[in-house]
Amino acid sequence: MLNKDRLFPTEPKTRDLARALYNEISTLPIVSPHGHTDPRWYAENEPFPDPAKLFVVPDHYVFRMLCSQGVKLTDLGVPRVDGGETETDSRKIWRLFAENFYLLRGTPSRGWLEHSFEHVFGLTKRFGPETADEFYDHIDECLQKPEFRPRALFERFNIEVIATTESPLDDLKWHAMIKDSGWTGGKVVTAYRPDPVVDPDFEGFAENIEKFGELTGLDTTNYDNYLEAHRVRRAFFKKFGATSTDHGHPTARTEDLPKAEAAALFAKALKGECTAEEADAFRGHMLTEMARMSVDDGLVLQIHPGSTRNHSAEVMARHGRDKGFDIPSQTNYVEALRPLLNAVGMEPDLTIVLFTLDETAYSRELAPLAGVYPALRLGPAWWFHDSPEGMRRYREMVTETAGFYNTVGFNDDTRAFCSIPARHDVARRVDCAFLATLVATGRLDEDEAPEVARDLTYNLVKRAYRL
Amino acid sequence: MLNKDRLFPTEPKTRDLARALYNEISTLPIVSPHGHTDPRWYAENEPFPDPAKLFVVPDHYVFRMLCSQGVKLTDLGVPRVDGGETETDSRKIWRLFAENFYLLRGTPSRGWLEHSFEHVFGLTKRFGPETADEFYDHIDECLQKPEFRPRALFERFNIEVIATTESPLDDLKWHAMIKDSGWTGGKVVTAYRPDPVVDPDFEGFAENIEKFGELTGLDTTNYDNYLEAHRVRRAFFKKFGATSTDHGHPTARTEDLPKAEAAALFAKALKGECTAEEADAFRGHMLTEMARMSVDDGLVLQIHPGSTRNHSAEVMARHGRDKGFDIPSQTNYVEALRPLLNAVGMEPDLTIVLFTLDETAYSRELAPLAGVYPALRLGPAWWFHDSPEGMRRYREMVTETAGFYNTVGFNDDTRAFCSIPARHDVARRVDCAFLATLVATGRLDEDEAPEVARDLTYNLVKRAYRL
Amino acid sequence: MLNKDRLFPTEPKTRDLARALYNEISTLPIVSPHGHTDPRWYAENEPFPDPAKLFVVPDHYVFRMLCSQGVKLTDLGVPRVDGGETETDSRKIWRLFAENFYLLRGTPSRGWLEHSFEHVFGLTKRFGPETADEFYDHIDECLQKPEFRPRALFERFNIEVIATTESPLDDLKWHAMIKDSGWTGGKVVTAYRPDPVVDPDFEGFAENIEKFGELTGLDTTNYDNYLEAHRVRRAFFKKFGATSTDHGHPTARTEDLPKAEAAALFAKALKGECTAEEADAFRGHMLTEMARMSVDDGLVLQIHPGSTRNHSAEVMARHGRDKGFDIPSQTNYVEALRPLLNAVGMEPDLTIVLFTLDETAYSRELAPLAGVYPALRLGPAWWFHDSPEGMRRYREMVTETAGFYNTVGFNDDTRAFCSIPARHDVARRVDCAFLATLVATGRLDEDEAPEVARDLTYNLVKRAYRL
Repeated sequence: MLNKDRLFPTEPKTRDLARALYNEISTLPIVSPHGHTDPRWYAENEPFPDPAKLFVVPDHYVFRMLCSQGVKLTDLGVPRVDGGETETDSRKIWRLFAENFYLLRGTPSRGWLEHSFEHVFGLTKRFGPETADEFYDHIDECLQKPEFRPRALFERFNIEVIATTESPLDDLKWHAMIKDSGWTGGKVVTAYRPDPVVDPDFEGFAENIEKFGELTGLDTTNYDNYLEAHRVRRAFFKKFGATSTDHGHPTARTEDLPKAEAAALFAKALKGECTAEEADAFRGHMLTEMARMSVDDGLVLQIHPGSTRNHSAEVMARHGRDKGFDIPSQTNYVEALRPLLNAVGMEPDLTIVLFTLDETAYSRELAPLAGVYPALRLGPAWWFHDSPEGMRRYREMVTETAGFYNTVGFNDDTRAFCSIPARHDVARRVDCAFLATLVATGRLDEDEAPEVARDLTYNLVKRAYRL
Repeated sequence: MLNKDRLFPTEPKTRDLARALYNEISTLPIVSPHGHTDPRWYAENEPFPDPAKLFVVPDHYVFRMLCSQGVKLTDLGVPRVDGGETETDSRKIWRLFAENFYLLRGTPSRGWLEHSFEHVFGLTKRFGPETADEFYDHIDECLQKPEFRPRALFERFNIEVIATTESPLDDLKWHAMIKDSGWTGGKVVTAYRPDPVVDPDFEGFAENIEKFGELTGLDTTNYDNYLEAHRVRRAFFKKFGATSTDHGHPTARTEDLPKAEAAALFAKALKGECTAEEADAFRGHMLTEMARMSVDDGLVLQIHPGSTRNHSAEVMARHGRDKGFDIPSQTNYVEALRPLLNAVGMEPDLTIVLFTLDETAYSRELAPLAGVYPALRLGPAWWFHDSPEGMRRYREMVTETAGFYNTVGFNDDTRAFCSIPARHDVARRVDCAFLATLVATGRLDEDEAPEVARDLTYNLVKRAYRL
Repeated sequence: MLNKDRLFPTEPKTRDLARALYNEISTLPIVSPHGHTDPRWYAENEPFPDPAKLFVVPDHYVFRMLCSQGVKLTDLGVPRVDGGETETDSRKIWRLFAENFYLLRGTPSRGWLEHSFEHVFGLTKRFGPETADEFYDHIDECLQKPEFRPRALFERFNIEVIATTESPLDDLKWHAMIKDSGWTGGKVVTAYRPDPVVDPDFEGFAENIEKFGELTGLDTTNYDNYLEAHRVRRAFFKKFGATSTDHGHPTARTEDLPKAEAAALFAKALKGECTAEEADAFRGHMLTEMARMSVDDGLVLQIHPGSTRNHSAEVMARHGRDKGFDIPSQTNYVEALRPLLNAVGMEPDLTIVLFTLDETAYSRELAPLAGVYPALRLGPAWWFHDSPEGMRRYREMVTETAGFYNTVGFNDDTRAFCSIPARHDVARRVDCAFLATLVATGRLDEDEAPEVARDLTYNLVKRAYRL
């Protein structure tokens, strides 16, 4: 059974303050403005397949930890690029997972999983080798029931709105299907993630640009048309509820190049002739172009920099992307963002949400930047830092310079559907613990704290993401 | 009303320890060895103009936060470079400030302001839109009274000595006026800040050097004379109490160049022909020269590196320097300080005080350096980190390697006069909280802690700055 | 008297949890897989000379702190390279140490020393100028007794096994003498530290390689033979219990060069013609070669990067290496380790233990890397960070991504023999405090924590180091 006071401060009076705050906001609806759930789930509303395929096979937090201790990815059913053999017996995968569950001690994944087991499936025993089959059977049985289908869970999770993330080349057919279905229980919107048509290093860049042209009826090999195609697709995404764009770049570099220079880089990129430096410059320039479009169409711009993707050549070749081998690297923002900020940083109606995997930037760079530029906001603790200690460090290092109101609430950023309530619950608890500590140490008045708690949980995210 | 136990640990016994320590040092005089108050205040002793001009218009901590949420700097009365229109109605500025006061929740500015309202002006209600006019009227009325003039406040604040910061080109007339006035209630000293005649990138560098020559009667276009002119002005500053010099450089780079090379860079700098790299090398070399002069004349050398100044070109053009758009950047000390330390680092009578805006350097570089070189001391948590969490991190990351006795007590570093007692109070509370935690966890004996608390509050700063 | 609850959380219930955990593991044997004690002590089993030579002269943690406050190294008896005069009166050195003992307040050295005084010598008064002679006399008297000889202390300290560190050029005669002595009370093993024959910048590199050839009967000027010589010496070290190799490099750079390229660099290195870049590349390549040999012979590979050695040219010239003037520098692992990891990172039977002096790498780079690569494990908080706050930060920043099971327990890494129980005790207390906090905040079940505590104290180190 989960500890009802988990993640609260240990000192009893401060814990009481935290619990009281939490009780005021724990049942507020979930607003999930950035994530990677599959819109097809909500469109088709088919049952989730089985416990292993729900909790293990797609969750890189889980399988990377087992991999780190010598468990083979193929034994966990992680698909191979060449279609070669991997474990297909879900119960076998589940048992292997259960035997190694102790490896997750002290990690947020452990907490998310236990929260899901208890809150979604009513399982309160300890998970492990002895209970593996019992858990498997129970979850499997549940998944067949109507109340465990995606839409039913969505409603039960009290999700007010969730954003998925799609490429400009996506036809948004699942979003169309959701829209046409007449489902009133949940709101699902898309977000514009143009990496495949913005990053010259992306697999198939030239073909992607061609497809981009087909979709928009424009000759996108021409730079002006290419920009226009973005405008066209952004407008299309807005029809499916999009309020934001998202950009995953290796660095935070931005550029604001003269048009001829940008067009020349684009031409080179189409021919596959960009150097690494040129590709980087083009990506950086496109962030500024995207920000200019955001000034016009109101889409919030999200920047997710600093992940060194696919660190192991062997795993990339065998299993492809997103297999836990993405490693954060040092990220600098001060000089990197200057061209973008000189172009649009003072725009009061623009919102740029910055994320980081480099916690050293919180107090040194990100809070000072967001604490002065009207266009900037700070995204929550991200990915490896989306955890109790990570969130605590975020508030401690960001708040004194950026305050609360330059932050944007919580993003779950997940493809693990059942973990959504768990993740939001962790964020709410850690925020209440932080606020309670401020109150207990005379930095915030007790009667102000509930207002801030509601802002951090619900109001700031709706305002920042215009939801 | 301020919480009497603010910033102390929450656990009751540790809180008791912290409170007992604090009670022993809370009324010690303030020694303020580094700051930016205006000596004219103490010289003329005229009333401060009005609440907005006292608390809002000059405080970049405050107006940058409002700017970050879309409030225009001109609406806050921040002057324009071109003399163009800005808000002049102080009550209107004050009300705008009050409406946005909630943005400061969780920031040290909130604490400093509330401390000033309560301790300086006796205002114990909550500040905000409803009380804005009441606060304005009361503060405005106070400011007319003799007991709120600069010297009276100085004495009431229990300031034993304060240092201001002046350029070598300053005639120190306000300091002369203070000296001649016969005021016995307070000691105001200057500090030598030679950036305008040391940094080839400083606006008007060549003209500054010319003026430097006029002031000293030396042909300062000659490098030897230029160095001599520094000696002359340092001696002049010492007559007005200076015990330190201060250097604000973009990086911590030092050099110890052969004389001919340094002279050649200086000649280039005079012609405005230095590359960025050469300007950097010259600045770095001058730190070593300044340190050599310090060995001779005993002035403490302070290095404040790592601020990327005037990040927004637009704001710099419209409003000029010091408008909240200075952003910390990554700062390395290990290789950067080597030339300086190889030259003078083992001098037992030299004191170099190092500051940082990059907290990652605390445990990695600064504490190890200060924990071995006799000439080095660590300045307190600075600027963005001059806050409860920032100070706590400083003690936690510095003490285990550098100890307490390689630190130099607290610097308020402020131009906000009324915040001085508040800032020192925060430092004293955080230090007592830290010491209480060491006692409660068996790392320091209970009867030693009061001695350390007095050292951190009063003795170390007097010794380090030779005051 | 030491506080029995030192380093535990202050909140009473969490403190109770920590104490209960500690009581279960506090008497487990010490396993010390990486350190720098002198095997000669255990071989000859002669008395330690006197208190100053035991606690002050060889301990760079202690004398660097006194040096930082102006005490001369020669007055502390630190030997000079030129054999020139240094203080030889141990009682005088001891008194100088006692007068300056207050400088160690807040540092781990203070705790280690007090623990040694109380636990090893039964001294419970406060050490300082007034008790200096009393302490000296008592310790000196003890050292003459049989129960204070190295082997007796070893047994009393409950050390199950300790590793020393030797160069491939070492004949391991002390280890042979220990082996031949029939001592059954303690196990002392060596570790293979090949820096003198791997680092082209090492003093006397070419001569070292020549001696390496003599020892192995191979013409080690030939690259193939040079690699073979490593294999031969590794096998020899294994005979004396070695289970690990150790590599102290300025950076974490690795390379996996084509053989011809590596051989060419080696040839240049022998001629002393390597550029700094080439020397670095060769060192980096040799890490990968060493890892390949580890795949074959099972030795655990330890990488200790990031120390800028001998920062002061003056101190290096006067006193030589290891005099407290080694300063950590920023260390990046992500790109640096890629060649090594692409070569052997997925090997399930290889163990590479990574250390850092740059704490920013914990959550950003090291935990993500160790949290996915089967071959990687994280060494404990090292050197400057081997302290209560340093260890706490380590657990807080590493655990959520790497878990507990990608860490390897504690290394004391010391040449200060009497501090070994103290250091292990600190690690055990900090770990129990961390685990108690996880339990108190609902992140770990109370009945799981003792198992984890035993793993962190005893099982993980034995498993990782194959002891």
